[in-house]
Amino acid sequence: MGTFELGDNQYGKAETRLVRVDRDGDTHAISDLNVTTTLAGDLAATHLTGDNSGVLPTDTQKNTVYAFARDGVGEIEDFALRLVRHFVTTTDEIKKARVRIEQYSWDRIAATGHSFARGAGTRTATATCDGESAWVVSGVADLVVLNTTGSEFHGFPRDRYTTLPETHDRILATAVTANWRHTSTERDWAQAFAGARDRLLTAFADTHSLSLQQTLHAMGERVLEGDDDLAEVRLTLPNKHHFLVDLAPFGLDNPGEVFHAADRPYGLIEGTVRRSDAPDAGLAWW
Amino acid sequence: MGTFELGDNQYGKAETRLVRVDRDGDTHAISDLNVTTTLAGDLAATHLTGDNSGVLPTDTQKNTVYAFARDGVGEIEDFALRLVRHFVTTTDEIKKARVRIEQYSWDRIAATGHSFARGAGTRTATATCDGESAWVVSGVADLVVLNTTGSEFHGFPRDRYTTLPETHDRILATAVTANWRHTSTERDWAQAFAGARDRLLTAFADTHSLSLQQTLHAMGERVLEGDDDLAEVRLTLPNKHHFLVDLAPFGLDNPGEVFHAADRPYGLIEGTVRRSDAPDAGLAWW
Amino acid sequence: MGTFELGDNQYGKAETRLVRVDRDGDTHAISDLNVTTTLAGDLAATHLTGDNSGVLPTDTQKNTVYAFARDGVGEIEDFALRLVRHFVTTTDEIKKARVRIEQYSWDRIAATGHSFARGAGTRTATATCDGESAWVVSGVADLVVLNTTGSEFHGFPRDRYTTLPETHDRILATAVTANWRHTSTERDWAQAFAGARDRLLTAFADTHSLSLQQTLHAMGERVLEGDDDLAEVRLTLPNKHHFLVDLAPFGLDNPGEVFHAADRPYGLIEGTVRRSDAPDAGLAWW
Amino acid sequence: MGTFELGDNQYGKAETRLVRVDRDGDTHAISDLNVTTTLAGDLAATHLTGDNSGVLPTDTQKNTVYAFARDGVGEIEDFALRLVRHFVTTTDEIKKARVRIEQYSWDRIAATGHSFARGAGTRTATATCDGESAWVVSGVADLVVLNTTGSEFHGFPRDRYTTLPETHDRILATAVTANWRHTSTERDWAQAFAGARDRLLTAFADTHSLSLQQTLHAMGERVLEGDDDLAEVRLTLPNKHHFLVDLAPFGLDNPGEVFHAADRPYGLIEGTVRRSDAPDAGLAWW
Repeated sequence: MGTFELGDNQYGKAETRLVRVDRDGDTHAISDLNVTTTLAGDLAATHLTGDNSGVLPTDTQKNTVYAFARDGVGEIEDFALRLVRHFVTTTDEIKKARVRIEQYSWDRIAATGHSFARGAGTRTATATCDGESAWVVSGVADLVVLNTTGSEFHGFPRDRYTTLPETHDRILATAVTANWRHTSTERDWAQAFAGARDRLLTAFADTHSLSLQQTLHAMGERVLEGDDDLAEVRLTLPNKHHFLVDLAPFGLDNPGEVFHAADRPYGLIEGTVRRSDAPDAGLAWW
Repeated sequence: MGTFELGDNQYGKAETRLVRVDRDGDTHAISDLNVTTTLAGDLAATHLTGDNSGVLPTDTQKNTVYAFARDGVGEIEDFALRLVRHFVTTTDEIKKARVRIEQYSWDRIAATGHSFARGAGTRTATATCDGESAWVVSGVADLVVLNTTGSEFHGFPRDRYTTLPETHDRILATAVTANWRHTSTERDWAQAFAGARDRLLTAFADTHSLSLQQTLHAMGERVLEGDDDLAEVRLTLPNKHHFLVDLAPFGLDNPGEVFHAADRPYGLIEGTVRRSDAPDAGLAWW
Repeated sequence: MGTFELGDNQYGKAETRLVRVDRDGDTHAISDLNVTTTLAGDLAATHLTGDNSGVLPTDTQKNTVYAFARDGVGEIEDFALRLVRHFVTTTDEIKKARVRIEQYSWDRIAATGHSFARGAGTRTATATCDGESAWVVSGVADLVVLNTTGSEFHGFPRDRYTTLPETHDRILATAVTANWRHTSTERDWAQAFAGARDRLLTAFADTHSLSLQQTLHAMGERVLEGDDDLAEVRLTLPNKHHFLVDLAPFGLDNPGEVFHAADRPYGLIEGTVRRSDAPDAGLAWW
Repeated sequence: MGTFELGDNQYGKAETRLVRVDRDGDTHAISDLNVTTTLAGDLAATHLTGDNSGVLPTDTQKNTVYAFARDGVGEIEDFALRLVRHFVTTTDEIKKARVRIEQYSWDRIAATGHSFARGAGTRTATATCDGESAWVVSGVADLVVLNTTGSEFHGFPRDRYTTLPETHDRILATAVTANWRHTSTERDWAQAFAGARDRLLTAFADTHSLSLQQTLHAMGERVLEGDDDLAEVRLTLPNKHHFLVDLAPFGLDNPGEVFHAADRPYGLIEGTVRRSDAPDAGLAWW
């Protein structure tokens, strides 16, 4: 049997759905958030004996999210920072906090100042804090993009199991998840986000791609190049395959026009680009 | 035991994922579709004895979708019409065909003529045909909208199980599924769609709402009012509840600012608005 | 413009998640339900003017579900019947009610009398009532089944777009949604359900299939044959394609052993089998 | 701007859906798998210049999965090991491989030897290899369990945002994701899995719980106690809240019988239990 020990552990409240309305006369604005809080520290007691004296309830974490929203949400990076800096002070046992926020996009409906239609894509932010320092990572999720040309894939090794033909023109499509680490916790977050997102899209579009890895690297580098306060970018890019349909059995050619968009399996390309002199990441990627 | 008979039956290929690229020099366009084909007729033989002589294979239906796309997709209503008119001629046994298409939205990325980012919302079209006549229904799905004010709900009956307080100001949010029936099969579909979608959004926004049913009716009527070639609108509107969070336990008021966006349960409001002199619907709603 | 009228309409509360615990000493039992209530009647007022005097709130419907569960749930058919018979009496305007219930399956963990592990498959029941009569439909959803042999598909017509080879041995897999209409509202529901589910499974398994339509018909007939109090069965059977992988490029044969389980597109076969002397369905299939 | 460098990166084919049929006369067996392969190594060239000479295509990885299945799948741990040991030899640049497999559960339908119904829960296995050593982690996913009693939660700290009452009897429900690391790569995997799963269930059931963390620790310890060849267990336990419904407004009490099963937010408890003398984990948790 032997003896056992408690290893890494953490807990929190996942997916608290908060909608915050800001009212400025007849013109309203909304922040539509999904907030996940995570705490860690000296929590052996509850694991070993059920002594919860250090365990700030996850219900309290949820309440705190709503209560803090009463003072406004603002940029999600700031809201996450306010929360993590609070959570690390709540009990002696809590030593670290992480707050991850997804923000859903809404466009105005022109007819009124209080009407909105949901847009595409998700903005994300994660703040972490160890009681002394704090870190911020911003990002996007579900940013689905597609190039109809400008993508090749060849020169790869062929073994007994290789049947893939080389291609010099294919559709390249992916659903971007990207996260970039800031070197500061006081920034114009809205501007930084808009710029990074725009550079991601532009780099995806204007990079002539010999592999999705090359596109990933170009996207990461582009994000960093445009903002000296970013240290590192991590990208996850599923290769959403679009297969040219063989129309020959029907007496038709198919000059790159008709494609089957496949579900599974899919390629999955993940990588990191960072500044060579990037400061230590601390808890940023916790 | 008694004797048994075959009742209504139909079959087809669901969710053929087709992406069609149109190339005009360096400027490309894409049609990203999910196509479901459904056939019906005198199909007792295959049910009773496994005699498939009248059963156009669903695999062939899928092939037909891809092959027809070689000549271009155009507006999804036209593409659906081309397909249903073909399918009813394929075997003697097939008497009716329905093709339902979902079209996903893509916005251009400015950097090139061949780069796109996925947008929100889905455009839909359904064509049906009985060999002589054809019908077209257009619509939207997943059109998520929200008003931060302009919605009340009161005057409802109260019974032993009623606890809901009356409200004179609430968030109203829904994910619109709407389908409108055309009285013609030859139209400027793109213009008709853009107009109907715009009227849906505007009616949702500018209707001061005493119930989601009232909003539904206003949306349906608005869609019809703007287009004499529409006979009927059917709407499905889940009431996506946003509950004001009680912040009093934390010593805070909450003047309509902090909401919990709930998942389940949700209200579900469904209704139809039609022109009083609407022609018979035929197979339109099959 | 013309004049407009309100067509079919209905409303209710969807997906109220109820877990009911029955405690008999140290031996507990649970009913884990997802309940959707739908009401209809003379509801023009709320649509046209926002007059909600006939609109039993969906929140009240949810409360009613929970309150009725206090007296026990029992078989879901009975629970649905109790609810619809109540709802049609709540306001003068409500003329019809439908309650649809999904029941999730749980198996006991042997170690205690109060521990459970979630099983597969969903039992469903729908009761409808018009104030005088009531109807009950029972069913299954998400019942995923697969035969590794005993399935053929050939003799189908071939047109220009047909490439599918005939097959005399294939995998047949589907996710059964089936609903059977009872001719009585007072039955041993548990026994009837167990029997119908068992006959569905057995008929799927022991029918040598020349088409999924033939399997569907056999399943429907078998359900009816075993229970004189069933009038009609409706089945929806997606054809979950399993494609034999071509291993020849790797110098390997593939004698029916290695398959790719595809996601989309999929065949979709729908059909009804009914007793020749089935009584009128009334609102059963509303 | 500064200079940039490529950080951690990896790629592979996600979610290859493989169904393997084993035929022994009229008695067949199936393995229904979802296989994700991941490779890493010296892959800077493709990221920086699009030189793919070291990039074994993800399409080839998929083909390899299918081809290896021709020789039989057996236990998923063994199948994953065969694959990772192959992949690290494919190109000089590939230094590490990981294969993660989900296996879906099927029960026999008694009527034949070739018919199956899908069961609940997922068995998982992950093998990793660096060219010299290999590691195996086994696990479960989506194992949903519930205790109707035997769970308390009290003694937690209360701050300004705490409203949660203490409870001495609540429903405890979770969807277990657990992964346990083996110290050997040659084992009776089926027996080890059955034992670990059984101990997980039993520990969940028979542990009188003062917190979900305590239950987590008990589950982890129980898994290790029963198998000397396991070094470490990692568990992720969402707290699927079941809230007692307040029936007092309806004049009813609710002695622990009627619950609302909530979706979001949910607690999320994660933790590790390991043997004090556990060997180094190497790439096991990559």
